[in-house]
Amino acid sequence: MSAPLDFWFSIGSPYTFLAVMRLPEIAERAEVEVRWRPFDARAIQAEAKDVPFADRPLKAAYMWRDIERRSARFGLTIRLPIPYPLAEIEQANRVAALAASEGWCPAYTIATYRHWFVDREPAGSDPNLSASIKEAGHDPARVLEQANAKDCIEALETATGEAKEIGIFGSPSFVADGELFWGQDRLEDAIEWQHNLDLGNPG
Amino acid sequence: MSAPLDFWFSIGSPYTFLAVMRLPEIAERAEVEVRWRPFDARAIQAEAKDVPFADRPLKAAYMWRDIERRSARFGLTIRLPIPYPLAEIEQANRVAALAASEGWCPAYTIATYRHWFVDREPAGSDPNLSASIKEAGHDPARVLEQANAKDCIEALETATGEAKEIGIFGSPSFVADGELFWGQDRLEDAIEWQHNLDLGNPG
Repeated sequence: MSAPLDFWFSIGSPYTFLAVMRLPEIAERAEVEVRWRPFDARAIQAEAKDVPFADRPLKAAYMWRDIERRSARFGLTIRLPIPYPLAEIEQANRVAALAASEGWCPAYTIATYRHWFVDREPAGSDPNLSASIKEAGHDPARVLEQANAKDCIEALETATGEAKEIGIFGSPSFVADGELFWGQDRLEDAIEWQHNLDLGNPG
Repeated sequence: MSAPLDFWFSIGSPYTFLAVMRLPEIAERAEVEVRWRPFDARAIQAEAKDVPFADRPLKAAYMWRDIERRSARFGLTIRLPIPYPLAEIEQANRVAALAASEGWCPAYTIATYRHWFVDREPAGSDPNLSASIKEAGHDPARVLEQANAKDCIEALETATGEAKEIGIFGSPSFVADGELFWGQDRLEDAIEWQHNLDLGNPG
């Protein structure tokens, strides 16, 4: 058995919504094991001076329309426009890092994206933040204290460094045994690649 | 019957290869009529200061690997590395503009991309240029003289202006009754949208 598929993502990335909502079902159908790896894509993009859609109103408008169409195609309800960009990206992703270390990252991430895209509540801020932690079965006070402590802040920074080392430049990305796939539209390709690895076939 | 699907493309864009090679078969299967619309994506990108992959070695390396994987997935033979960027993009696209006005644009564009991606001969330059014109059934001397005359140069500029007006910012793009799809990975979405229009269903 090979290592699981790594799903690298940052809460705050709009396109990542499509991957977060679709991944669990598609992975389960293909019997592919997935490891959810939150990281800070914005830090990597700021360093590379490559922040997508910044100062690109035409592309940004296209992105929202594209997300709207793809959501409809996949049967996902969303209510645009939603708050963007997020004010508290770090907070959102620190909680994801803690959740990943404790095993409840998918539940939290799906909940926070749903509150953001359906209820128009920014991820990383209340009421979204506490509601999503609760829906994942945890206590917001305990989680927020721990997520903002030194260990958790460093864990997210370490993950971001690891992502950069691998050559990741945006969210969402998928890594199957060193093979990098970028973008929600490569979800199926990545799952198929991992499935072949699991069967013992090289990519 | 609705207007045909507009396929906006620039020879010189690597990802456009995947659309050029796959579009005819997918459109025919869906019984969707396509109008090939060459334009100068580089001019639009230069004006928007948004030239993809320029000064982004990591993303550029990813792009080639991604194109290689997708080509394999679609059964398309390619031989990387190939010459990039192209020195004579304008020449390549002027011939495409003339070919579009005379009805042989797909044949020429497919031939020139094949010579570029399989034989490693830059599109827009000889031997690729003349060979591709000949394979499309035309006389290179006649075509090149006409393609570089005032009318044809202006036709490409006019098309580029029209693309900009529509809000197109890169190649390949697809437009179905004003609905814009960007990227080779939206080919199927665009064909489906157009197919629904042809059936009289609004998008």
